[in-house]
Amino acid sequence: MAPITITPIDDDKVSDLTAQGIEHALSKTKPHNGVATSGELDASLLTTSLTTSPRPVPAIGSAEMASQKICTDHMIQAKWTEEEGWAAPSLQPYGPLSLMPTSSCLHYATQCFEGMKLYRGHDGKLRLFRPELNCKRMLMSTTRIALPAFPPAELLKLIVKLCATDGEKWLPKDRAGAFLYIRPAMIGTDFALGVQRPREALLLVMLTCFAPMDDIPGGAKLLASQDDMCRAWPGGFGYAKVGANYGPSLVAQGEAREKGFHQILWLFGEDCTITEAGASNFFVVWRTKEGKVQIVTADLDEKIVLDGVTRRSVLELLRTRLASSSPAVEGLEPVEVVERKFTMFEIEEAYREGRFIEAFAAGTAWFIAPVGHIQFRGNDLAIPMGDDGEGGKYTTVVKRWLKNIMWGQDEGVGNEWGFIVEEA
Amino acid sequence: MAPITITPIDDDKVSDLTAQGIEHALSKTKPHNGVATSGELDASLLTTSLTTSPRPVPAIGSAEMASQKICTDHMIQAKWTEEEGWAAPSLQPYGPLSLMPTSSCLHYATQCFEGMKLYRGHDGKLRLFRPELNCKRMLMSTTRIALPAFPPAELLKLIVKLCATDGEKWLPKDRAGAFLYIRPAMIGTDFALGVQRPREALLLVMLTCFAPMDDIPGGAKLLASQDDMCRAWPGGFGYAKVGANYGPSLVAQGEAREKGFHQILWLFGEDCTITEAGASNFFVVWRTKEGKVQIVTADLDEKIVLDGVTRRSVLELLRTRLASSSPAVEGLEPVEVVERKFTMFEIEEAYREGRFIEAFAAGTAWFIAPVGHIQFRGNDLAIPMGDDGEGGKYTTVVKRWLKNIMWGQDEGVGNEWGFIVEEA
Repeated sequence: MAPITITPIDDDKVSDLTAQGIEHALSKTKPHNGVATSGELDASLLTTSLTTSPRPVPAIGSAEMASQKICTDHMIQAKWTEEEGWAAPSLQPYGPLSLMPTSSCLHYATQCFEGMKLYRGHDGKLRLFRPELNCKRMLMSTTRIALPAFPPAELLKLIVKLCATDGEKWLPKDRAGAFLYIRPAMIGTDFALGVQRPREALLLVMLTCFAPMDDIPGGAKLLASQDDMCRAWPGGFGYAKVGANYGPSLVAQGEAREKGFHQILWLFGEDCTITEAGASNFFVVWRTKEGKVQIVTADLDEKIVLDGVTRRSVLELLRTRLASSSPAVEGLEPVEVVERKFTMFEIEEAYREGRFIEAFAAGTAWFIAPVGHIQFRGNDLAIPMGDDGEGGKYTTVVKRWLKNIMWGQDEGVGNEWGFIVEEA
Repeated sequence: MAPITITPIDDDKVSDLTAQGIEHALSKTKPHNGVATSGELDASLLTTSLTTSPRPVPAIGSAEMASQKICTDHMIQAKWTEEEGWAAPSLQPYGPLSLMPTSSCLHYATQCFEGMKLYRGHDGKLRLFRPELNCKRMLMSTTRIALPAFPPAELLKLIVKLCATDGEKWLPKDRAGAFLYIRPAMIGTDFALGVQRPREALLLVMLTCFAPMDDIPGGAKLLASQDDMCRAWPGGFGYAKVGANYGPSLVAQGEAREKGFHQILWLFGEDCTITEAGASNFFVVWRTKEGKVQIVTADLDEKIVLDGVTRRSVLELLRTRLASSSPAVEGLEPVEVVERKFTMFEIEEAYREGRFIEAFAAGTAWFIAPVGHIQFRGNDLAIPMGDDGEGGKYTTVVKRWLKNIMWGQDEGVGNEWGFIVEEA
C-alpha cells in the first residue's frame, strides 16, 4: 500500500459521541439565571394573537371527543434557526402548518414529542401532573434526535400559558374529573434535503380533546410481540419520546387490533424480556416463591424502555405507601417494589404456579389500564381483573391515588405533584 | 385466582404478524392488469396544473445548487384515505404543504421515501437508473411503516411524467453528465392524535438540485460507531427506507462531522459487524489469506442493511465483468464477489497484514465514494486512494461503468438499466 497523507483528526472528543455526547449536550443546557440570553427560548417574550373564529367544545362522550382530532382554539409555536437561536414564541389561533415538502421532519423523522394532561379538579382548579418531568424529558428527546436544546422551565411556562388561555372554555368548571391531552412537539423544518442535523426547527404545543382510555371492559388484551419484530435495542432510542419509536410499531399494533387485542406487549431478545405494553410501561403483581407480594416493572438500565412519568410516580407511591410492614391500605399486603429485567417465561411460570396476581399498563394516554389477557406464542393467559372485574386490588389502589392527586384530592409524595394552573 | 371470562381471540393468523405479515401484505399488492380498480393509484388519472411563476435554474457549481433546497417547478401529489383509497394524482406547482399540527407524520414518523436520480445523457437523452427497483422498495417501505400500498408501476409512471415535464428546463441538453435528485416520499396525514395506523396519507414526488457528492479530496473519512450507539437491529427496520432510520443517526453524524469525518461507519454488536457507511452501503476490497482479490459487502440476511440499488448493481457488474478468470479490464485481477457478515476486526487484520486494497461507499446520493480513512476506537487506518489519489482501481472501474450506464454510454448487465424518459 502506498502511504497516504491524511488530514489529522482531533480525536480527543471521540468519547463525547453518542450516549455520553448526549449527556454532555444536556449538561450544557442549564436553565439560565433569569437573564434572557440572546436566542434562548424565553417565555417572557411570548406574543399573543387570539382567534377570531372560536370553535365549539365537543360534549363529553361524543364521537368528536373520541376522534382525537379536535384541538382547542389556540396553540404555541416557537421557531429556531441555527444562526438566530429561538425567536419569540407565539400563542396563536390553532390551524394548519405550512411546511416545505422537503422538510427534514417529513423525511428523516427529526421529531419528538411529549404527552401530558390538563386536569379539571374537583375543587374547580386546573392542574398539571409533575409537568417539570415531561419538560426535562422533552429536552432529552430533542437532544437524542438532533433538535435544538431549550430551558425546560421555559417550555413549562409556555404550556401553562396555553392551558390558562384555553382551559376555562375547553375544560369548564362543570367538567370536574375531566382532562385535555397536552401535546408539546418539536420538528425539524430545515428543507435542505441532505441527511443532516436540521438547521431550523419548530416547537409546538397543542391541547387536544381525548376520551379516557383506561376503562376497557374486561381489561386490556395484550399480544406478546413475535420474535421477528422488536421495538427498541440497546444503543438505540427506545428511552426517548421520538417519532421513530412509534411508526415502526404500527404494523404489529394494527395486526394485533385486527385480532381483537388492544396493544402489543413488546418483548426483547431470546429470553423474551418484558419491555413495554403498547406505548405504556408495564407492571406485574405476583407472589414470589417465598410468598411475598412483589410489584415488578422493567428497569431503565439498557435504555430500551421509556422513563415514564406515570411509571415513576407509581413506583414512588408504592414504595412510600405499600412497601412498609403496615401498608396504608386496609386489606393489602406489604409489597416489594422492584425494577429489574424480567421475562415472559417468569410470567408464565408464576401463572402456572398460581402466583400471578394482576397486571397493568401505565402511561399518560392509557393512564392505569388493568390488563385482562396476554397471549404469548399461542398460549392465552387470563389475568385476574378483581372481584368487580374492573382491575385487581393493587391496580385499583394505585389508580385511585393517582386520580386523587391529578384532580386535587391528594398531594402525592413529597408534595407538589399537582401543579396548579392559575386561570386569568 | 378467580376464573375470568374472556372474549375468544382468533389466533389462526398470529403468524401473519410482523415480517411475515409484511410479506403477506406485499404479496396482496400485485400490479393490477391494466384495469383501474376503484381507489387504486392510477397514473392515467393524473391531472396537470402548470406553474404560472416559473423559477430560475441554479448554475452548475453555484451555492444554490449545493444548498439542496431548490426543487423544480412542479411536484406530484396523490392523496389516500382508508375509505376512498387513492384519489387521482396531480402534477402541480411546487410549493409548501398544509398539514395539521397533529398529523401522524409529524409525531409518529409515519413516513418513508426513495432516492433516485434523473441523468442527462451524453447522447442528449434523459435517463433513470433501474427505477423499477426503487418503486418496489418504496412499496416495501410503505408497508413496513403502516402506510398504504400501491402498484409500483404506477408510481414509476408518475415519476416519469414529472421528469418529462421539468427535465428540459431543469436539466437542459447542455448539461450532459449532470443530474437532478428525485425524491418520492409518502407521509401519514391522519391528524387523529392517537398512536395508530394512519387512515390518511399523501404520496409526493419532488425533483431537487444536488451537487455531486462523490469527489471528496482524499476520499471519505469514516468514523466507526461507538459501542453505545447502534443504527439498526434484527427485528427492526434498518432494511427499509423509513424516516425512523435517519433522524436517530444524526447525533452521531453531527459529532463525527465536527471532528472532520464525513460519515459514521455503522457497526453492529459486540463483534463489530460492518453494516453501512452513513446512509450508503459499504464495500471493501482486500486480498484473502490465500492471495485472491475479494470484494465484500454486508449481506442482507438480518435485515439491518438497506438493499441498495447501487449496491445490487455493483455486485451484478462485478460478478459479470470481473469474477471470471479473464476480467474485462486490463490490469485488474479476477475478483471473488462476496456478500457476507464481516467485521471491523477483519478489516484491521487485513490492514495490519498488508492485504487491504481499497474501500468505497455506494448509494444514490453519494454514488461511488472512495473511502480514504477509517477511525476505529482511536486507531486510524489510512486507506489507499490509488495512484492519482482519486480512488483505488477497482473502485474507479466500478464507478466508470455505472457512470457510463447512467449517462447512456453502456447498457449495463441484462440491458435496460438505463430507462429512457421521453421528453414532450
